[in-house]
Amino acid sequence: MGKGLPKRSEDYSQWYNELVKKADLAEHSAVRGCMVIKPYGFSIWEKMQAALDKMFKDTGHTNAYFPLFVPKSYLSKEADHVEGFAKECAVVTHYRLKNAEDGSGVVVDPEAKLEEELIVRPTSETVIWNTYKNWIQSYRDLPLLINQWANVVRWEMRTRLFLRTAEFLWQEGHTAHATKQEAIDETLQMLNVYAEFAEKHMAMPVHKGVKTESERFPGALDTYCIEALMQDGKALQAGTSHFLGQNFAKAFDVKFADKEGKLDLVWGTSWGVSTRLMGALIMAHSDDDGLVLPPKLAPIQVVIVPIFRNEEQLKAISEVVDRIQDELKALDISVKFDTRDTNSPGWKFAEYELKGVPIRMAIGPRDLEKGTIEVARRDTKEKEVVAVDGVVKKVQDLLEDIQKNIYNKAMIFRENNTTSVDTYEEFKSVLDSKGGFILAHWDGTPETEEKIKEETKATIRCIPVGAVEESGKCIYSGKPSERRVLFARAY
Amino acid sequence: MGKGLPKRSEDYSQWYNELVKKADLAEHSAVRGCMVIKPYGFSIWEKMQAALDKMFKDTGHTNAYFPLFVPKSYLSKEADHVEGFAKECAVVTHYRLKNAEDGSGVVVDPEAKLEEELIVRPTSETVIWNTYKNWIQSYRDLPLLINQWANVVRWEMRTRLFLRTAEFLWQEGHTAHATKQEAIDETLQMLNVYAEFAEKHMAMPVHKGVKTESERFPGALDTYCIEALMQDGKALQAGTSHFLGQNFAKAFDVKFADKEGKLDLVWGTSWGVSTRLMGALIMAHSDDDGLVLPPKLAPIQVVIVPIFRNEEQLKAISEVVDRIQDELKALDISVKFDTRDTNSPGWKFAEYELKGVPIRMAIGPRDLEKGTIEVARRDTKEKEVVAVDGVVKKVQDLLEDIQKNIYNKAMIFRENNTTSVDTYEEFKSVLDSKGGFILAHWDGTPETEEKIKEETKATIRCIPVGAVEESGKCIYSGKPSERRVLFARAY
Repeated sequence: MGKGLPKRSEDYSQWYNELVKKADLAEHSAVRGCMVIKPYGFSIWEKMQAALDKMFKDTGHTNAYFPLFVPKSYLSKEADHVEGFAKECAVVTHYRLKNAEDGSGVVVDPEAKLEEELIVRPTSETVIWNTYKNWIQSYRDLPLLINQWANVVRWEMRTRLFLRTAEFLWQEGHTAHATKQEAIDETLQMLNVYAEFAEKHMAMPVHKGVKTESERFPGALDTYCIEALMQDGKALQAGTSHFLGQNFAKAFDVKFADKEGKLDLVWGTSWGVSTRLMGALIMAHSDDDGLVLPPKLAPIQVVIVPIFRNEEQLKAISEVVDRIQDELKALDISVKFDTRDTNSPGWKFAEYELKGVPIRMAIGPRDLEKGTIEVARRDTKEKEVVAVDGVVKKVQDLLEDIQKNIYNKAMIFRENNTTSVDTYEEFKSVLDSKGGFILAHWDGTPETEEKIKEETKATIRCIPVGAVEESGKCIYSGKPSERRVLFARAY
Repeated sequence: MGKGLPKRSEDYSQWYNELVKKADLAEHSAVRGCMVIKPYGFSIWEKMQAALDKMFKDTGHTNAYFPLFVPKSYLSKEADHVEGFAKECAVVTHYRLKNAEDGSGVVVDPEAKLEEELIVRPTSETVIWNTYKNWIQSYRDLPLLINQWANVVRWEMRTRLFLRTAEFLWQEGHTAHATKQEAIDETLQMLNVYAEFAEKHMAMPVHKGVKTESERFPGALDTYCIEALMQDGKALQAGTSHFLGQNFAKAFDVKFADKEGKLDLVWGTSWGVSTRLMGALIMAHSDDDGLVLPPKLAPIQVVIVPIFRNEEQLKAISEVVDRIQDELKALDISVKFDTRDTNSPGWKFAEYELKGVPIRMAIGPRDLEKGTIEVARRDTKEKEVVAVDGVVKKVQDLLEDIQKNIYNKAMIFRENNTTSVDTYEEFKSVLDSKGGFILAHWDGTPETEEKIKEETKATIRCIPVGAVEESGKCIYSGKPSERRVLFARAY
């Protein structure tokens, strides 16, 4: 439609990059690896935040805020954790600048060197467990169910908007429990919350599963994840929930007295989703003409474009539209009436298509005469002329239908792009021809996993939760296996 | 009430520190100067955010997100700006740690030194105007009305919870306009939004005014502020709105083509409030027994404490309370029913008093017989026994009344602690006896302002907006003055 997006079939990666920019979602900043989230993109993120925040609160969590900085020594207290994050972190070493003596501007003041370097948080387990030590004395203080919305920094060398950036926004839940079972239940509860959010709000089907040892969060005993499939056949990890065991309690000496007064280490979980979800949302549904947004996350759910040649016509149209707008707003449906005379209706149609507005209505003088209005849906591009009298009900129904349809379409795509294979040859052939998820037997060793990754770039996305037991042979080693695992090339 | 707060009259500063900790609002973290905002404190901040965010959106602003890091060279582009912030900033110099060769843990990897140091944002004008340069070409791109909720860092040496911390949370609005007048109007509009928020939500009367040159935001042409009075007679700056003129447009070369195609520099504003408001809220209203929260910002507006000796009694009470709770929730009134048997009613009364819950209800077996319930308000501590049938209406009325009463009390306090003086002797005597706001004539020079500050620690809080013209003599120099300005010792 003249917005000049590359076609997905020709260059998926370039299509994504251009779409993110042209739909005003985000852009690279002048600060290496950091992005600017633009107002339109941020308003989608705000809708995600609101829905997730409500789900967290409905499951008993409260928000709090912990410091941006992690003292270097904290990071080191959990061995796997420091190993996982030390190689890509921003380090604060000084707390002052001063004027250069040669007048060339400001330079770091060597006299303002910190005694201990501070790391800009890549995640907050260490700072939070160091705080929990003081908050937890007895079983009465448990469970502690806290979430934080925050920015984090991981010094990525190769970045892509939303998918991988040095700074990103996320939420991180950190909970503490008296028993192992309670902590495992919490880990799985939050995995389910994420899956429900992905499916009901983002209209994006996901597989729930557990990561293999090599893909675990540094410091966790088990990492659960939700995995979604993008339109180019690559998988995307959309959220993780970690069972931390007593690792961080041990590292920070967090103990509680049970009812009998006996001291024991606390059990922990942590779980997070980030602005990466924006990338998933874009890639799961959008098409060559632009974004396709599920109504539940669309900042503008309905746009109304008037077709007019003069002020008088616009005035007559506005009278009808104002009534429609009032009724829609009363139903909490967000609506925009674009009366600008600086752009043509055709330009506006393309613009709102690019921006993924689920429903577009158009109304001109002839519609006024007939009492009608044109209604077009973004997902299927179907158009229909309906009576103004029934349009509000029509919109309500359509929004529900679009939400479902987008989900179903993604589900059918996933089904069509999930293949069970029994040989390594077949595995490689499917990977190279269509990609997608591949269910295959694996012998359970990190060595085989690593070999397959090296040779094909495919990784084990997860061992699906509730996978059926099925005896078989590892596609690589031929050794026995009890269940199929989910492979894919991934973002 | 046994919670062991120091009395305000004996040690106001200690009272504040203890209250912040005991009411579970915030605490110092192990990271120097950074605070942990605890769940109860954060839930008050969330209420503030929600109300402010709505006011920003209602006045046409949208949210976005800009990078945490500011390249050192950006800070230097506006001369006053770098002068103001370079002395207290966290500097990122490296992007990786590595294992120490002697096995002593992790150390900064000298090979991962950044080419240009990054400053953790103390405020975002430079990063944002550098972005606006690409967003603004024509008058059609203006006005640009953007807000960001973010964390910022200013390396303060002496910190106090909420009032002055190295890291704090805030919002920063950054707008760009085609004309000077529009930018000035925006500056004043946001000043009014802040004042309305302070008065209607925080129940805290404020003076609106403009700062003197020496107190201006670094890089602004004019800084407007709202100033509130705390119970110890000290003033607190609660929000600022800056008219930036074309300073940042100049520094970052942000020009737009007007309707005739002529290029001109853009006009700017910025405005912010921070978690400092939490400090203001606490100090404006609370008493020796704990927090006093205005109903509009109270996370729990009503608490119901059952008086019971056994499960049977609790069950009977619960039946009545459940009905009351349902009705209150339907009216969007947040209510908590504290049925714990681990703590006595008296302990709970003291706890919710400390936490500032506006209304506390208590109900026991005798009330059940009589169909009554006890209702106590936190602000005046008045208690009343009312019929259960009418209690929901009673609560609605009381919440409104408490909101008004807290405001009126603060207003009367401010009136009783605002003094007009005409001599320097009187000025010093009022400052030392009761403090508060002092209205006095000033000759308009920075020299006099500085001398008064040096000698008395009082500063000019602002030149009140709409101050009546009145000829007089400067209390310090005796030189002529046209209006009184507002002095106080301040936080």
